[in-house]
Amino acid sequence: MTSPSLMTPRFLPTANDLGVVSVGFSGGQCKLGVDAAPSALIEAGLLNQLSTDLGFTLHYDHTIHYYRDILPTEDPDHRNMKRPIAVSAVTQRLSEQVYEHASQGRCVLTLGGDHSVAIGSIAGVARAVRERHAGRELAVIWVDAHADINTPETSNSGNIHGMPVAFLTGLARSDHPSIFGWLQPDQLISLKKLVYIGLRDVDIGEKRTLREHGVKAFSMHDIDKHGIGKVMEMALGHIGADTPIHLSFDVDALDPLIAPSTGTPVRGGLTLREGDYICESVHETGSLVGLDLVEVNPSLGGDSVGVRETVRAGCSLVRCALGESLL
Amino acid sequence: MTSPSLMTPRFLPTANDLGVVSVGFSGGQCKLGVDAAPSALIEAGLLNQLSTDLGFTLHYDHTIHYYRDILPTEDPDHRNMKRPIAVSAVTQRLSEQVYEHASQGRCVLTLGGDHSVAIGSIAGVARAVRERHAGRELAVIWVDAHADINTPETSNSGNIHGMPVAFLTGLARSDHPSIFGWLQPDQLISLKKLVYIGLRDVDIGEKRTLREHGVKAFSMHDIDKHGIGKVMEMALGHIGADTPIHLSFDVDALDPLIAPSTGTPVRGGLTLREGDYICESVHETGSLVGLDLVEVNPSLGGDSVGVRETVRAGCSLVRCALGESLL
Amino acid sequence: MTSPSLMTPRFLPTANDLGVVSVGFSGGQCKLGVDAAPSALIEAGLLNQLSTDLGFTLHYDHTIHYYRDILPTEDPDHRNMKRPIAVSAVTQRLSEQVYEHASQGRCVLTLGGDHSVAIGSIAGVARAVRERHAGRELAVIWVDAHADINTPETSNSGNIHGMPVAFLTGLARSDHPSIFGWLQPDQLISLKKLVYIGLRDVDIGEKRTLREHGVKAFSMHDIDKHGIGKVMEMALGHIGADTPIHLSFDVDALDPLIAPSTGTPVRGGLTLREGDYICESVHETGSLVGLDLVEVNPSLGGDSVGVRETVRAGCSLVRCALGESLL
Ligand SMILES: [Mn+2]
Ligand SMILES: [Mn+2]
Ligand SMILES: [Mn+2]
Ligand SMILES: [Mn+2]
Ligand SMILES: [Mn+2]
Ligand SMILES: [Mn+2]
Repeated sequence: MTSPSLMTPRFLPTANDLGVVSVGFSGGQCKLGVDAAPSALIEAGLLNQLSTDLGFTLHYDHTIHYYRDILPTEDPDHRNMKRPIAVSAVTQRLSEQVYEHASQGRCVLTLGGDHSVAIGSIAGVARAVRERHAGRELAVIWVDAHADINTPETSNSGNIHGMPVAFLTGLARSDHPSIFGWLQPDQLISLKKLVYIGLRDVDIGEKRTLREHGVKAFSMHDIDKHGIGKVMEMALGHIGADTPIHLSFDVDALDPLIAPSTGTPVRGGLTLREGDYICESVHETGSLVGLDLVEVNPSLGGDSVGVRETVRAGCSLVRCALGESLL
Repeated sequence: MTSPSLMTPRFLPTANDLGVVSVGFSGGQCKLGVDAAPSALIEAGLLNQLSTDLGFTLHYDHTIHYYRDILPTEDPDHRNMKRPIAVSAVTQRLSEQVYEHASQGRCVLTLGGDHSVAIGSIAGVARAVRERHAGRELAVIWVDAHADINTPETSNSGNIHGMPVAFLTGLARSDHPSIFGWLQPDQLISLKKLVYIGLRDVDIGEKRTLREHGVKAFSMHDIDKHGIGKVMEMALGHIGADTPIHLSFDVDALDPLIAPSTGTPVRGGLTLREGDYICESVHETGSLVGLDLVEVNPSLGGDSVGVRETVRAGCSLVRCALGESLL
Repeated sequence: MTSPSLMTPRFLPTANDLGVVSVGFSGGQCKLGVDAAPSALIEAGLLNQLSTDLGFTLHYDHTIHYYRDILPTEDPDHRNMKRPIAVSAVTQRLSEQVYEHASQGRCVLTLGGDHSVAIGSIAGVARAVRERHAGRELAVIWVDAHADINTPETSNSGNIHGMPVAFLTGLARSDHPSIFGWLQPDQLISLKKLVYIGLRDVDIGEKRTLREHGVKAFSMHDIDKHGIGKVMEMALGHIGADTPIHLSFDVDALDPLIAPSTGTPVRGGLTLREGDYICESVHETGSLVGLDLVEVNPSLGGDSVGVRETVRAGCSLVRCALGESLL
């Protein structure tokens, strides 16, 4: 039984206004079905729970965006990227939708879709934060089995859902106008304000990148070593209390036993309790201004139980990040 | 392979006398089957294990009490309570049975039944402790997904298994002689000596109660934050070494993946290891004087594997609380 | 995605030479099938992963040893031991094979087989360590649900896979030339340098032995109490930085939910994450000189999923001990 959070937000004018954007997009990777995640989450009651139980006023267009009008008819590989024009167009459009909410001081929830959509959501939030808070930078907590920080050149697969952090931090750049040329400096984030949690399948080139730039990353090894309580203390300590936070949660951070319906499951992941704990801890900071839930794929995961559990887990994560608490 | 505990009890004359009461009662809630728990636990070998492996002399009437002779023919709702006369009559009778054991200095094990039976078991132990230890109060560790502290007025369901703590602490009162009017002050416990562990589904009114009275409560969030080792240290520190302890363990505190056969399962619960750890820690205090194991329902939980695992988990919890140790 | 470890070994001349011995032996216990573990592990890709991903030069005879030429035609019980001549002969031969690798400064991986094979592998490594490091003693980390420290006289089953630690520490002795009479003092280990992790099913006589000799043992209770991070810190602190380490990992230390395909599963075991963490921590010391993976039994564990998961878990443990890391 839940009730509205008692927490006062640090970077938002009100505690109960929430922008919501549903993104039915799967073009950042090759498996069909992840575009059906927003409808599955909403059918499971997520938005009702947010308004009824947690007391949010939802700012939502009641539309699952498939962006069919802006998808290109032809989209050849470019610098090893698959579907680069489609992903660029969708994330550019999404960045505008999210910015629209964020610039009005709303916390913004983006329901993906594959993780490439975070290029759009974070670009939109980062710009609004800079405008509303005198140039302040946005911190990002990226909860994921993967680092998603490949550049087009280091990626093996060419799937852009493995590259969003590279584009968002400026490690990957493009001058091509319809392939991420739209990304402007005020939409980017700093590697210093990026924190990973849950990593356990990181490519060799990515490991090098994380080491070279000293990126704060808590792998599953670190969670086993310190416990999730201490890890969140360290993660949030690194970010500091004076920084707005965007939480980008890839459901594959959870163990596949709990959340099997996802495109790139990796064993040895977070328990649901640890996932919820991460979200609760971020909520308690009062600094949350944006939130993605991505990579739920209702077409995968074996049986209907697996799908239902994955969707329920996703709903739980969102509710915890937005203020549901146990006591 | 187990052997008798080497621990010397602080509040009992002997270490190896155990009173046992089997309560086949399901009237505190609406799902049939929880009355079959004592026979399932005993058939799984629980009492044999206690006598043979742990060396207890069992004081047991070899009877599963269904209390059919005292169940009313009519039992209309009263102040929103369902089956109030039946639950009151059964728990009153149980309080006498438990008191009979406890007043002779025996630790008492009550096998429920739904959690309403704790009204009887704790009332019986609390009175005996006051008599045997110069008015000393009984501490209660309530391990449960739920707080069970609704009053008849705050309860949504009217099921009395959600109210035992309210009646036992005097938050709920009744002058009606056949509806808990029998509860006397020397049978009650103090909110100051109550500790919850495992909470994760607490009603809004209950949350308010816990806050107002400053009740010590460790939710699953706290267990994730601190680890079960530290939580038990804090829980037992709150109670102190000079206080006899009653452990009331609702099997739904465990995660439904481990113990699915229960009436109100809630995801995100204790692992079996954490459940056993709680029980082992309470045993190690030497202060345990009473123990309930409740809400095992062999009719629920899907398949025979689930039932067997739930029953085995229940047996394990009891053995750990009564001295089974790994080394 | 893995890459060679960056760690410099403390007691080996090179970081990337690995001796491998495959032991298809099941005579230390009564269940058929554990002799098929090496082929299952190798078919799952273990040796390829070690050479390709982790960069090891494997010193391996590409043979799964069944030792049929040295198995006796008759092998009556002796001092309660079952198949004593067979186990003695096989472990003596294995000790020579392992010594051959270890004396050349290679880390040695032994793929069992049941846990009796550790008599051979540890005897071989212990002798080589004494020779190569001026009499220095080998420390052993024994990860297991069981203590395997019964003497022939205290064992209930007579299965020698429950006795290897007794023979290796000199608690059990024999002058019979073909029944462990071959074990020489320089092949033994000290009870002071032995550390157990994961214990949860220890016989009464074994508990007494552990207490009398003050053996460092971390049960599942200790892991719950402190967390695996702190437990490994204490375990490695007990051994000290100046001691070569042999890690003997019985897959039944893992929880049967994760690794069901083993002869004597016990509930309440390590998670895969905890198992990997143990191995990673041992690797990080730089002191690892020998490693056993034992008791994978592909004939047990229910269905093909259980077998596959057990084998995958075994591969993961070995890789982690040999340098696979998440970041
Ligand atoms: Mn991912
Ligand atoms: Mn991702
Ligand atoms: Mn409950
Ligand atoms: Mn209860
Ligand atoms: Mn074992
Ligand atoms: Mn073993």
